Amino acid sequence: MSTLCHFSADQLLSTIAQLARFSDTPLHEGVTRFAYSENDELAHRYIIDLATQQGLDCRQDAVGNVFITLKGQDSSLPAIATGSHLDTVPNGGQYDGILGVVAGLYALCQFKPKTLKRDLTLIIFRCEESSRFGLSCVGSKILTGHTDPEKWHTITDSSGKTLYQVIDEAGYQSQQLTHCVLPQNAFAAFVELHIEQGRCLENANVQIGVVNGIAAPTRFQVDVYGQADHSGATPMDQRQDALVTAAHLITTINQLANQEAHLGTVGTVGKLNVYPNAMNVIPGHVRFYVDIRGIDEASIARVAQGLTQTVNDLDQAAAIRISLSQLAQEKPVRLNQTVCHIISKLCDKHTITYQPMLSGAGHDAMYMATRLPTAMIFIPSKAGISHHKEEYSSSEQILVGADLLTQTLAELANFKENVLDDSN
Amino acid sequence: MSTLCHFSADQLLSTIAQLARFSDTPLHEGVTRFAYSENDELAHRYIIDLATQQGLDCRQDAVGNVFITLKGQDSSLPAIATGSHLDTVPNGGQYDGILGVVAGLYALCQFKPKTLKRDLTLIIFRCEESSRFGLSCVGSKILTGHTDPEKWHTITDSSGKTLYQVIDEAGYQSQQLTHCVLPQNAFAAFVELHIEQGRCLENANVQIGVVNGIAAPTRFQVDVYGQADHSGATPMDQRQDALVTAAHLITTINQLANQEAHLGTVGTVGKLNVYPNAMNVIPGHVRFYVDIRGIDEASIARVAQGLTQTVNDLDQAAAIRISLSQLAQEKPVRLNQTVCHIISKLCDKHTITYQPMLSGAGHDAMYMATRLPTAMIFIPSKAGISHHKEEYSSSEQILVGADLLTQTLAELANFKENVLDDSN
Repeated sequence: MSTLCHFSADQLLSTIAQLARFSDTPLHEGVTRFAYSENDELAHRYIIDLATQQGLDCRQDAVGNVFITLKGQDSSLPAIATGSHLDTVPNGGQYDGILGVVAGLYALCQFKPKTLKRDLTLIIFRCEESSRFGLSCVGSKILTGHTDPEKWHTITDSSGKTLYQVIDEAGYQSQQLTHCVLPQNAFAAFVELHIEQGRCLENANVQIGVVNGIAAPTRFQVDVYGQADHSGATPMDQRQDALVTAAHLITTINQLANQEAHLGTVGTVGKLNVYPNAMNVIPGHVRFYVDIRGIDEASIARVAQGLTQTVNDLDQAAAIRISLSQLAQEKPVRLNQTVCHIISKLCDKHTITYQPMLSGAGHDAMYMATRLPTAMIFIPSKAGISHHKEEYSSSEQILVGADLLTQTLAELANFKENVLDDSN
Repeated sequence: MSTLCHFSADQLLSTIAQLARFSDTPLHEGVTRFAYSENDELAHRYIIDLATQQGLDCRQDAVGNVFITLKGQDSSLPAIATGSHLDTVPNGGQYDGILGVVAGLYALCQFKPKTLKRDLTLIIFRCEESSRFGLSCVGSKILTGHTDPEKWHTITDSSGKTLYQVIDEAGYQSQQLTHCVLPQNAFAAFVELHIEQGRCLENANVQIGVVNGIAAPTRFQVDVYGQADHSGATPMDQRQDALVTAAHLITTINQLANQEAHLGTVGTVGKLNVYPNAMNVIPGHVRFYVDIRGIDEASIARVAQGLTQTVNDLDQAAAIRISLSQLAQEKPVRLNQTVCHIISKLCDKHTITYQPMLSGAGHDAMYMATRLPTAMIFIPSKAGISHHKEEYSSSEQILVGADLLTQTLAELANFKENVLDDSN
């Protein structure tokens, strides 16, 4: 097409910078772009306009997920997909999600139409962050049929608007939501490029993480009920100190997770509140949350069982009562070994340092993996900081990732048959 | 005097109930009577009026401390004093402080003037609770010369009013504060009746605690600085989890205090905050407060040293940084053994069950003890609850305490010479 112009590495970087301007907060306070907000619509429109200028085919489904396609030689074959999201957490960074979208556009623009065998499609998933509705990966859940229309009907944002209202007010058709599921043979593989949001790559001084699994959280709320007494007037042997018991449980959880660390399992108490929380009152109640993640279900179960056992032992032994309630038990996702192998081989070929790794955070790829061969590529995050204005990956790191994504998509697009199924 | 009428046990109980009406909160939310508030002034006036009706001599000093005196045969001798306070914590109980004031009035009213050898004086100390100014025992500190006029000048309540402003606005003269110190030979002894605010007496099923010491707090603020990382994206061996380290310190403090428990020492972490306190973020900072109390200074020092040693060891061993700052190191107070012996003997005589004990909480008696022979009498607190609307001691328990106080004051008032000094 006559309007086609090359989408350069410089344009990739400047597009990431431009997108940061679509924010409800000034840039020095980070990027705030809630799903389906005016700025979120503008950001999507901005990418669609860029893609259209590049002569790419653009369409949106009934909930606003974007599909940008570079035609291959045989569009009747299942296409190769990449993608990520444009929405952010409040006061978030410029790279989480955005990198995968803009690098995907960059990748598509590196090829002339009809030069690769299969179509390449960039998917921009809507509402990946849970910040607005307490529900993450809304777009990818819809595309892969992981919806719960009954329950979703009641989900609201902090202003009281339902998810469906918000979708409709943005100009889409929430009642068509269940018709958005991807057709069976639409895609042959999916690869998502993302920032690591951790420090593994930086610490190891490695350029690329080849993500072979996405950890899923098993979560508990723990309430320890003791007795709030005067800290001066209550002898040690007459105390039911909820915080002392909580401290024992925190130590136990850490030990249990350390025992499973070689399998990639982690265990964290990130949130804890003490009641009444006064210097001169023995804690009467401590509530805390346990977040266990990993890729090995048996390993996660051992940590959870160890916690349950410790709670039961303590609960029976002392006057202190402990209530343990499970908030989540999500299934970890193993990604496609063949796609991971292709990515690793390309790293070798281009002398890029890499390591296989797990993603601790959830991503749209988690849901895509339930339907088709999927992998992820991570680039380093400075100091592991994410969901924060300090989120940063260097231009060099971004371009290594974007070029690797480009190579990977090209290789996948030229596969003659579907040889990606790990069970083959 | 013709207006003199007997102040009965019933009147003692009904006066306690009446005082609960002078509150900024409705009764079902507990008693809120901040020092020098309108309700606090009304409560003091109520007691002064009752005492005046009983023919007792009433005066106030320049900061509002009240002195109610029953004349003895020889007013030139040092008098015997009792007393407590009328101010409360927010949403407090009906007995903390109030009991000692009303029972003191009851005690004075059990004798005709000039029947005891010495004068008996009831002192109502102002501003014992730290709720309003973060400063406790203001009245008794002033009377015993434990003031710091420079520092006190800057102390404000939550509305920004200085302590001195508040004293002046209530009709007193803050500039006379340093002239309120008790004259050298004004009093020969001081005995305060108070609720226990703990469960020792209830657990032991004992009617009276003869308090031979008041524990004083040694306090630390501990800041543990780790690194706030994503709970899913950070492997166990790359974490600096501030809460795991804090849990270890809490366990250590509990163990150190348990080792010293036989000496009456206690150690508590009552207040703890986690930052950023989110389920999916490894705690980057934990701040908590340590409250160590006891009567044995060497024992308190061993707990404090054990904590310091553990902090130093951890601080050097790990990437986690710990800052320990001492907030207080108050001297515990031993009360007068002779006065305690007199109280115990009276319990024996009247077949009242009793035990020697420590006060874990601070009281005005702590400061009076620095100037003259002092002891305290405790009655049981139901379930040890205090500083709360559920604070409760039964009528029977109150009357046992009030009658014992009466007997004790009478015995002390009839001492011919000052034989109370333990060093004699």
